[in-house]
Order: sequence, then structure tokens, then C-alpha cells
Amino acid sequence: MGRWMPDAQGRMIRAAMELFAERGFEQTTAVDIAERAGVTERTFFRHFADKREVLFDGSATMVHTVHEAILAAPGDLSPLEAALTGIVAAGDLLEERRDHAVRRSRIIAANPSLQERELLKLAAMVDTTAEALRKRGAPEPAADLAAHSAVTVFHVAFASWISEQAQPSFAECVAQTTAALRKLM
Amino acid sequence: MGRWMPDAQGRMIRAAMELFAERGFEQTTAVDIAERAGVTERTFFRHFADKREVLFDGSATMVHTVHEAILAAPGDLSPLEAALTGIVAAGDLLEERRDHAVRRSRIIAANPSLQERELLKLAAMVDTTAEALRKRGAPEPAADLAAHSAVTVFHVAFASWISEQAQPSFAECVAQTTAALRKLM
Repeated sequence: MGRWMPDAQGRMIRAAMELFAERGFEQTTAVDIAERAGVTERTFFRHFADKREVLFDGSATMVHTVHEAILAAPGDLSPLEAALTGIVAAGDLLEERRDHAVRRSRIIAANPSLQERELLKLAAMVDTTAEALRKRGAPEPAADLAAHSAVTVFHVAFASWISEQAQPSFAECVAQTTAALRKLM
Repeated sequence: MGRWMPDAQGRMIRAAMELFAERGFEQTTAVDIAERAGVTERTFFRHFADKREVLFDGSATMVHTVHEAILAAPGDLSPLEAALTGIVAAGDLLEERRDHAVRRSRIIAANPSLQERELLKLAAMVDTTAEALRKRGAPEPAADLAAHSAVTVFHVAFASWISEQAQPSFAECVAQTTAALRKLM
């Protein structure tokens, strides 16, 4: 059991990731996860609504980080630039646990029900981004379009971040993906 | 019962839209819809997996239309322009039943579970668009980025198409939204 995550929540996340990788997501139960983590089932359900939520424990923090980074961005940035500041801040969280992010994305890619939940979380990121841009004074449809575009960049940059041999930083992937997007227009 | 939809499927869709508007989506059952449409419950379930699917009967046709329009677009169009040709073709289907589209979007906006299904259908439209662009020879990440951007335009253009007093055409909304997107970059 990983000493790097001494708390119960961290142990459950680590146990779940091991079990999902060993047996598959569908074949793993909340009870299995609690057992492997050395906690009771009750403790598990105090932290997570279901076994799917173990994979989305960082989503709320990530969305909050995006929101705060956009509000803190220099006032002279365009709506898209401000939104991308939020995306880069989200990437900083991913950089802190790259291996977890890679394993997590493999598990999600193998399970349609997890892909659906991931889509919902990305939609929440679009909504939060647009809201933060409106607070900065961006009008519609600029706020909405910039929010969608920034989350598109996040999505595509993430795919290259986890797949490229050279292991570029997330911020580099965002810069490259943004350049590719601008070239398309 | 609308004579404009003499077939059983059309009658069920019309009955469902009436009931969802009168009672709300949650308070309407498949049995209610079958009864109002003058068909048996068995007939209902031969056409639709559940009452939610009544609202998504056009999704497969729309995604297919997008795919075919992109493949049929002139070969010299850029990936984004080709993708937008698909979006305009999808808009032509919406124009054919504007009132239905408006009522449908109100029902979906009022129900989180329907919003989730709508997100999944939009994600399917992104995947199909990217696939069609790759068939035209678009490389990655251009195909993926153009597909996401075109569906963003669809989403934002749809909102202005159903809300603007002047009732612009869907193609006009797509043109305006695309211009706003280009200006952001």
C-alpha cells in the first residue's frame, strides 16, 4: 500500500486503481476496494457515492482551479487567452500526478459508462469557464465560444500529453494544440 | 391528433410532446404516451427503448446527414469548412420542423437526465464529424479540433436560432457564430 498516500481517501483511490487495472472496472466492487485499502465499507461510502466517483475525485478541485485562474488572469487578456490560462492551471494539477492521470484515462477509455461521466465533467468545465469569462466582462457569444474552445484544447492537449513519447509538459501541449486550432480558423 | 403525422411513430412523438408540455417529462409515462397516441404499449416499445428516446428520434438521421454532407463537400474546403457544411446540412433538418425543435429544447433544458443524453448525442456528432474529416484526408489533430469546433458552432448557433426574435435561418446563425469564433482566435 502506497506510503505516498497515507490518508484513507488516498489509500482507497490507490486500491481502486490497482483493482480496476487487475480485474477490470466492472468486476471490481466497492467492498473489494474497501478491503484492499484496509477500511470498512462504511468508510468507503462516506468518501464516495459509488465506485465510479473514485475516478472523479479530482474533478471538483480541477473545475474550481480553472474558475479561480480565469478570474486571476490579467485583465487585458482576450476571452480565449483567459480561458486557456484556466486550462493550463488545470494541467498543473495533472502534472502533479501524471501516472495516475495516464492509468485513469485508460480505465475510462475502456468503459462507456465512465466515458459518459467524463463527458458530463467536461461539460461542467465548459459551464464554469463561460461563467468565469462573463464575470470578467466577456459578452455572449464570445464567453460561450471561448469556453467551448478552451475545453476542446484541454481535451485534445490531454490526449497528446499522455500519448507522446517525448513526454512534453501539459502547458506545451496546450500551446501546440492552440496553435493548431488557430491555424484551422 | 395531428394529421400532419399520420403514421404511428409520428403520432407517438406528437402525443409525447403534448404530454411533456402539459404534465412535465417526469410525470409522463410510456403508457400515457401510447394511450394518447391511440397505440398499444407494445407498439410504443417497438419504436422506442424508453420515453426519453422519443425526444432523440432524429439524432441518428442527423448524425448520418452530417457525415454524408462532409464527404460530399468540395475537396478543396478546409477541414473546418467541410465540417461546417455538415452542420448546415443538420440545420436543414431542423428547419423542417422548427416548432418541434423549439419545444424539444425547452423540455430538455428542464430535465438534467435529458441534458445528459443530449450531451452524449453531441459527442457522437463530434466523433462522426472527425471520422468523416479523416476520410477526406484531414490529419490529426486538425480533424479532431475541426470536429469539436464545428459542433461548438452547432450548439451556440442553435441557441441563437431558437431564441432570436427575428427568426434568422439556421445557416445564418451558423455563419454569424463562425465569424464570432474566428474573431476570438
